[in-house]
Amino acid sequence: MRSSKYLLATQKETPSDAEIVSHQLMLRAGMVRKLASGLYTWLPNGLRVLSKVEQIVREEMNASGSIEIHMPTVQPSDLWQETGRWDKFGPELLRFKDRHSRDFVLGPTHEEVVTELVRREVNSYKQLPLNLFQIQAKFRDEVRPRFGVMRSREFLMKDAYSFHLSDECLQSTYDEMYAAYCRIFERLGLEYRPVLADTGSIGGSVSHEFHVLAESGEDAIVFSDNSDYAANIEKAEALAPAGERSAPSQEMQEVATPNAKTIAELVEQFDLTVEQTVKTLIVKASEESEHSLIALILRGDHELNEIKAENLPEIASPLEFASEEEIRAAVGAGPGSLGPVNLPMPVIVDRAAAHCSDFGAGANVDDKHFFGINWERDVALGEIADLRNVVEGDPSPCGSGNLSIKRGIEVGHIFQLGDAYAKSMNAAVLNEQGKNQTLTMGCYGVGVSRIVAAAIEQNNDKYGITWPDAIAPFKLAIVPMNMHKSHRVQEVANKLYEEAKQRGIDVLFDDRKERPGVMFADIELIGIPHVIVIGDRSLDKGVIEYKNRRNGEKIEVAVENIFEQF
Amino acid sequence: MRSSKYLLATQKETPSDAEIVSHQLMLRAGMVRKLASGLYTWLPNGLRVLSKVEQIVREEMNASGSIEIHMPTVQPSDLWQETGRWDKFGPELLRFKDRHSRDFVLGPTHEEVVTELVRREVNSYKQLPLNLFQIQAKFRDEVRPRFGVMRSREFLMKDAYSFHLSDECLQSTYDEMYAAYCRIFERLGLEYRPVLADTGSIGGSVSHEFHVLAESGEDAIVFSDNSDYAANIEKAEALAPAGERSAPSQEMQEVATPNAKTIAELVEQFDLTVEQTVKTLIVKASEESEHSLIALILRGDHELNEIKAENLPEIASPLEFASEEEIRAAVGAGPGSLGPVNLPMPVIVDRAAAHCSDFGAGANVDDKHFFGINWERDVALGEIADLRNVVEGDPSPCGSGNLSIKRGIEVGHIFQLGDAYAKSMNAAVLNEQGKNQTLTMGCYGVGVSRIVAAAIEQNNDKYGITWPDAIAPFKLAIVPMNMHKSHRVQEVANKLYEEAKQRGIDVLFDDRKERPGVMFADIELIGIPHVIVIGDRSLDKGVIEYKNRRNGEKIEVAVENIFEQF
Repeated sequence: MRSSKYLLATQKETPSDAEIVSHQLMLRAGMVRKLASGLYTWLPNGLRVLSKVEQIVREEMNASGSIEIHMPTVQPSDLWQETGRWDKFGPELLRFKDRHSRDFVLGPTHEEVVTELVRREVNSYKQLPLNLFQIQAKFRDEVRPRFGVMRSREFLMKDAYSFHLSDECLQSTYDEMYAAYCRIFERLGLEYRPVLADTGSIGGSVSHEFHVLAESGEDAIVFSDNSDYAANIEKAEALAPAGERSAPSQEMQEVATPNAKTIAELVEQFDLTVEQTVKTLIVKASEESEHSLIALILRGDHELNEIKAENLPEIASPLEFASEEEIRAAVGAGPGSLGPVNLPMPVIVDRAAAHCSDFGAGANVDDKHFFGINWERDVALGEIADLRNVVEGDPSPCGSGNLSIKRGIEVGHIFQLGDAYAKSMNAAVLNEQGKNQTLTMGCYGVGVSRIVAAAIEQNNDKYGITWPDAIAPFKLAIVPMNMHKSHRVQEVANKLYEEAKQRGIDVLFDDRKERPGVMFADIELIGIPHVIVIGDRSLDKGVIEYKNRRNGEKIEVAVENIFEQF
Repeated sequence: MRSSKYLLATQKETPSDAEIVSHQLMLRAGMVRKLASGLYTWLPNGLRVLSKVEQIVREEMNASGSIEIHMPTVQPSDLWQETGRWDKFGPELLRFKDRHSRDFVLGPTHEEVVTELVRREVNSYKQLPLNLFQIQAKFRDEVRPRFGVMRSREFLMKDAYSFHLSDECLQSTYDEMYAAYCRIFERLGLEYRPVLADTGSIGGSVSHEFHVLAESGEDAIVFSDNSDYAANIEKAEALAPAGERSAPSQEMQEVATPNAKTIAELVEQFDLTVEQTVKTLIVKASEESEHSLIALILRGDHELNEIKAENLPEIASPLEFASEEEIRAAVGAGPGSLGPVNLPMPVIVDRAAAHCSDFGAGANVDDKHFFGINWERDVALGEIADLRNVVEGDPSPCGSGNLSIKRGIEVGHIFQLGDAYAKSMNAAVLNEQGKNQTLTMGCYGVGVSRIVAAAIEQNNDKYGITWPDAIAPFKLAIVPMNMHKSHRVQEVANKLYEEAKQRGIDVLFDDRKERPGVMFADIELIGIPHVIVIGDRSLDKGVIEYKNRRNGEKIEVAVENIFEQF
């Protein structure tokens, strides 16, 4: 491609409305433009990257035995009513009526449509397992779209759905998808990690997320320093502290604490370590519970893991905290003075909090705390559960090593869905015994457009994007110096451009009448990994310059040897 | 691909709700399935064809210098309000509100969005010309979707838009697009014709349609038998008959015609040829006209061309016929007794009707006609215009040869749009003189999914689809006979399958445990152009069978020579 015939669309200024570096660089590097909130046009520099990611995903899905299909974006509401998601799905599901006043949705996902297809096309166990995928623009009406294509409303997604008659068969396809995803992210040239994930509201039993590692990532993911264990922090189990709880050594006493509403204030004003405190959070109970509120007790230095909490049957899902008013009505004290002693509601105690001795907590009377509390002696322990986020250094739940925490961007997610969709939609086939049997399903997503943003979060420097070769908009840039004045430079540049094309190299020939500084800045900004600089001064010596964008190394190379450099 | 690991999804029965052969065959060959009215899922056999068409379109667009981008499907209403199309577009434009009650449309086309992009990104004549394309699912809320993907609501489209500062520059890109479209349809292996088209309501000056020829085509297209002239019948000019009009030889007389309400009845009951009759059609005048109705006079054997009529400034657009009530109120007679003599409204006479002498027409009194009418002597001629459809044998408007008529399916359309969109959206750049100048535009569409259906309309026989090689779902089928019983057949089939894959041939290996008849029927139905049949009987002779799907020829070939056959 000659840049004079191309829409480079680079910008010098960092756009003021772009909060994260990938969004800033995608705008500056001429990759995307915003059309409206959460809606982006992909410009040539962006679409070239997106298409390369898409093609790698497609090739590895094909290699895994998944079969490509293409379902409509617009879906009739009746299928969503069959699974109950017409009502359950929030306003992210964009609903509309067609000219005949029939209800439709703009598909954010395709479980219903693919299950409808399979229940019609597949009648016998002989046709199973079946794994179907598509790569398609999806729509999710986010309440606050942000971070450019990282969280946009229209986005490109690879979604796959597999169908089986047994859990073993599902597990085997799941394993194939896991392996395919690893190959995808390896080929993309990204640092990534598959991690155990919570299956959450989609249901199902087993799930892994695939994260691109980046300091700016929204998700915390944890790793063992001595095994393969890796999990989303939402999912990572916090083990009970080792050993027995210490025996009581203090008497429980009530203390006036008028200026201590928080754990930090308590520790600062009194002779207590933070590990000797617990905090009490009041949440709504589930409808099945006979109480309306439940208290969660965590050690003062620990954070509640909301997913773990809402997965408990006693607790309402989604998790809902009691208001100060509700707390006062139930306890007679404000949120800053709560504790397990004399609390008129059931209590669930985190494993670490259950291991505390001689600890301090609110007295359920305003401006009072108890110090020297001991479980069982002063207050019944109640149910013990894993309620907290793991922290750096915690023992790994796999039993080997300690946990470290990194930031990641979720770009893939695989699920063992089970039979929820197949059951509600009556998707069954004749099994080997000639009997009707409901299918079991897996689903497997990759956020194709999100990968582009995540790759930039992981690969950038002060000059711009440092693409891996596999997904750079161009692999090679040819930058001639003063070509419009030097016939010799022009001749060499044209020759190398033609040769690069013949070799099948994706090449950008910067033939604009621009100053070298402008050309270099653009090439570094859009992040072309390999750069050839052709100038009269080096041609005098019979060489040209090769520059590696990622490590910044420059070397002089004889013209005829240039294609050996990369 | 092994068919045992594939979703072949063929059907023996012709679906009762499919009216045209391409729709029937796409369902039977496992190419598409209907999800809802006008919404189709592309199954593997269909998507493979669609993707091949898409890739050929993409490659030729790239080769022509057009640059690929990708705009959102969901478009904000404000741009459509800027061009006035928010109000002008009918209910085919699907409008909806997002969760914040803002208005959006599901894009049927992208003139507004691309013009918005270009007015922001392009500031100088130096960046022009610019030709941008995308390949994308579009949505048009057809009142009566039908014929499968031929007229569906969601469909795959290649749309391109070019921007210029001069008509010469626009013409040059238009010519490049014309050439690119010819290359596309040649590579697809389809019999096609570019034809002159009416620019109609989209506006602009020059336009060509690209038609795939098929007897079932909805459009009539006309050709000169002695030149390159080809046009949509809507556009094809009907020349005035050669020579002078014959002098009058009869007196005008009033005749009672109580049983002749139509031209056919008149000709049957009286001594008149159909060429000696004219018919009178009353239509609404345009708002600018001082009359409310206008009469159109055509020769009795000719058909009104509505496009030509509504393109006349005196006539309302879209064309609207007067009701019988309105005709009676204005004329005092019914539609079966109208004629030019004593007609109380302006008259526009078709060129052929204006050439008639001694002709018959209604007397504008019920059950009366005049015979022996002659223009000028008995009634003023008024305005003469080209109002009719050409017919087989008419002289070509290019001046060389006579016209023949064929049926076609419109699959591409190129337009010189002019500055209508750029003007209303204020898309201008600095020209070479440093002055602001409004852009002029071209737009270029290809119906990618429609091509698949059109290709089938053109290429089918009683066994199924006869694909051209370039877009067949697979190029080669390997059909082993009784492979599950013969180790030798299995070995040769596996070996040829591996070799075909190594040669990069798109191959389907039918390894199902099915009877040969079932396998052959499926392979012929889905239309794989080249078939290798491997059986013990031919292997005894050291040969295998090669069959050409399109011409039906079978030959025996030594195993080692098979890949030389196609």
